[in-house]
Amino acid sequence: MSILTDPQKAAFATSHPAWTLHEETITRTFTFEDFAEAIGFVTRVGVAAERVFHHPDIDIRWNTVTLTLTSHDVGGLTERDVELAARIDSFVD
Amino acid sequence: MSILTDPQKAAFATSHPAWTLHEETITRTFTFEDFAEAIGFVTRVGVAAERVFHHPDIDIRWNTVTLTLTSHDVGGLTERDVELAARIDSFVD
Repeated sequence: MSILTDPQKAAFATSHPAWTLHEETITRTFTFEDFAEAIGFVTRVGVAAERVFHHPDIDIRWNTVTLTLTSHDVGGLTERDVELAARIDSFVD
Repeated sequence: MSILTDPQKAAFATSHPAWTLHEETITRTFTFEDFAEAIGFVTRVGVAAERVFHHPDIDIRWNTVTLTLTSHDVGGLTERDVELAARIDSFVD
């Protein structure tokens, strides 16, 4: 699994504007009605992450969930990150 | 609900050494076998938190979960924090 090129990263940023590209990570913050909704989302993300064995960093602040993705094993963003991000987007968008 | 006094905070820190007291927050990091175990724990914490309508900040890093508790509404640590911390401890200790 190779690290995405700059044009590939730019293409992702354009097609998924809710995610913020920062060097070799992508981040998105999701806001829900309340904590219970946020935990429900995290559980769903957890199952999706486990399915592809690729795990975002997850920060929960009451009704807000921030996910950060990178591929630690290769030290950068890969197809795994953008595919999981797109999958997670499909839960809410 | 009043803010805990310094002796009350010190008593909690002594009786719950796995938690770190930092000004008006308490924090504990829990390490599990893997991500699935960590998510399972977060779900359990989520249900316990919702039950008392008091919600920790939750950071998930693969198999590691960090919880931070404070009572935002009164700007400090209260009985609610130490009671929820003790309940969460009962899940793992």
